[in-house]
Amino acid sequence: MSKVLEGVRVIDFTRVLAGPFCSMILADLGAEVIKIERPETGDDTRAYGPFINGESLYFMSVNRGKKSITLNLKNPKSVALLKSLIKTADVVVENFKPGVMKRLGLDYEALSAINPRLIYAASSGFGQTGPWSQKPAYDLIVQGLSGIMSLTGTPGGKPNKVGMSIADMDAGIFAALGIMAALLQREKTGRGQLVDIAMLDCMLSILENAATRYMATGVVPEAIGNRHAIITPFTMVEAKDGYLNIAAGNDVLFGKFAQCIGMAFLATDERFNTNDKRLQNWDALSALINEATRQKNVQLWLELLEKEGIPSGPINTMDKVVENPQVLARNMVMEMQHPVAGKVRCVGSPLKLSDSPIHSIQPSPTLGESNIDIICEITGCDVEEARRLVQEGEFH
Amino acid sequence: MSKVLEGVRVIDFTRVLAGPFCSMILADLGAEVIKIERPETGDDTRAYGPFINGESLYFMSVNRGKKSITLNLKNPKSVALLKSLIKTADVVVENFKPGVMKRLGLDYEALSAINPRLIYAASSGFGQTGPWSQKPAYDLIVQGLSGIMSLTGTPGGKPNKVGMSIADMDAGIFAALGIMAALLQREKTGRGQLVDIAMLDCMLSILENAATRYMATGVVPEAIGNRHAIITPFTMVEAKDGYLNIAAGNDVLFGKFAQCIGMAFLATDERFNTNDKRLQNWDALSALINEATRQKNVQLWLELLEKEGIPSGPINTMDKVVENPQVLARNMVMEMQHPVAGKVRCVGSPLKLSDSPIHSIQPSPTLGESNIDIICEITGCDVEEARRLVQEGEFH
Repeated sequence: MSKVLEGVRVIDFTRVLAGPFCSMILADLGAEVIKIERPETGDDTRAYGPFINGESLYFMSVNRGKKSITLNLKNPKSVALLKSLIKTADVVVENFKPGVMKRLGLDYEALSAINPRLIYAASSGFGQTGPWSQKPAYDLIVQGLSGIMSLTGTPGGKPNKVGMSIADMDAGIFAALGIMAALLQREKTGRGQLVDIAMLDCMLSILENAATRYMATGVVPEAIGNRHAIITPFTMVEAKDGYLNIAAGNDVLFGKFAQCIGMAFLATDERFNTNDKRLQNWDALSALINEATRQKNVQLWLELLEKEGIPSGPINTMDKVVENPQVLARNMVMEMQHPVAGKVRCVGSPLKLSDSPIHSIQPSPTLGESNIDIICEITGCDVEEARRLVQEGEFH
Repeated sequence: MSKVLEGVRVIDFTRVLAGPFCSMILADLGAEVIKIERPETGDDTRAYGPFINGESLYFMSVNRGKKSITLNLKNPKSVALLKSLIKTADVVVENFKPGVMKRLGLDYEALSAINPRLIYAASSGFGQTGPWSQKPAYDLIVQGLSGIMSLTGTPGGKPNKVGMSIADMDAGIFAALGIMAALLQREKTGRGQLVDIAMLDCMLSILENAATRYMATGVVPEAIGNRHAIITPFTMVEAKDGYLNIAAGNDVLFGKFAQCIGMAFLATDERFNTNDKRLQNWDALSALINEATRQKNVQLWLELLEKEGIPSGPINTMDKVVENPQVLARNMVMEMQHPVAGKVRCVGSPLKLSDSPIHSIQPSPTLGESNIDIICEITGCDVEEARRLVQEGEFH
């Protein structure tokens, strides 16, 4: 039961979020990921709080299982070392603004010339091509451009950002997928290739049918709050002490739901006795349902609804999320033993592969912790000599 | 420049969204995806409007490039045909509730016994294992359980669902990633394996550091609206005719931004002259900024900000999204020629691979359009005989 990417070496130039999430997926699958960091400070996120014994939780959360080596990319000696390192590698990943790696002499053309089997994945806001490739892009900017903010929130209300960096995370997964595709292709061709991932492209691809529907009908989709577009009631409702989701997706379930909330008459009411009518008369129905659901607490509703077989669920905050018995049973909370921060719990991998399971995770690296090892391997010098080179700032 | 998954045969039992999105990614990469559909009605989404010449845009948007064969899975003759078909396949994908495929005799154990090289990917709400595996799960329910609804929206406001089925789409991408991993592993081992993907697991994995942060600090993360957690100003602001995003991520950019909006004094104001202070005094700063930005239209602001090099962007609705020159330049709007609906535009693939580019897409299948071809291939009968079998309802 070897890991999928055992023996695959990844040289990781990524910083902050999208790129590191991509290379963490590769590390989880067993790749040796060598993170190249700026001397002294490293990845920007090492400075983002909160900290445990001075170690950033942000950094730790997306860099587990990687090695770290510090190199000044503007120092020709560092670049020469890197090129030697890249000759031994299978994959390079970077999320600089397009053009930066070319100026450093480390772009795909340069690197594939010295290692034709190399897979080079570049993740950026807008991609390596096109008129906007040089524009600055951040998750917020891309969310706005993608349409997702116009679709999230209440009808007629302000646009809403998704409450996490969805454009970054989405690009990270697609970059990992592109790298896996290129590794598979290399089995056939013996050659690497360039994988060019753009946050904006990735966001478009997960908007379901919003774009297709608009382009065919000319009707611009709008935010519709917490309800389903065509099934009713399939929505968040208000309880006495909070909110919950309910999903009564057909007439039978609606009948049971109506009875459960003490409004059995709704199921036969001429305004609500088919899904189409419930959709048409949603405002009236919503008012009646919420009048009923406001009478009891969330927990009691969840028990009553479950007993009747009506799909429902709480609106969890993070404290509840990580206590969920299913989350724990699926090994989605894992622990790493960090040399400085100690035991740190983080989120497990959703890739549950029967033949190559991910049973444990390694901690994120301290800054430059593999400097000596890598320098020895690549230059052939001994540990003493490597220490001297590092101390004299050879690669800084 | 062959496609990555050329020669890979996928038997696709998926319905609605998460599973079909997964198998569409495989089809885009060149796999032969044979969709197994219920006779007469097919995938539920074939009945979801809006329609073009009676064809569902929803269905077309996540099923392009696939074949379709109609089989009644409760008919032993259909199951026998399917098993013969699966002997020729590389991958099975399904998104039934856990247990359904076992009752049909089509679970991983049964199928791997007849085809040890088979990769079997199951996508479900909560996964194949754990105490909740049998609970009903829908995107809305999983969004609530995952914590994302508690993080999306304004501080102190109601929870908000993300304005598309993020839990479905996320699981679809991870399922594709798991399948690619298993295909790569098979190159080494010669064996297939079970890929068990849960929507809830996948949602946890994209919540950035929210869970890690909570588990280390005990502080429950809350929704913070459209601003960045630690960089200010990095937020949506109000213009005369709408909203826009701005990202002035450091003191220099903040100085330029303050000048650009005619409030140069902000940059030296004791309340706002460092990022930490801007964060502390955000309410006051936000009020001042929005007072200024409300004076001009979105388009004018975008031009002024771009000239100063301050990252910014519009909050696009879908009509604007699909007109964006970068989206068009990246081939993210593609056209399929559907035999019934005619030309239909849809969203391209974000997987831009230099050696295996996706230049064109095939339409989604009409219901059962490959019945005769597949029956001929598997049973060895001729077209006449296959037609007779279909007409006599042999597999229905």
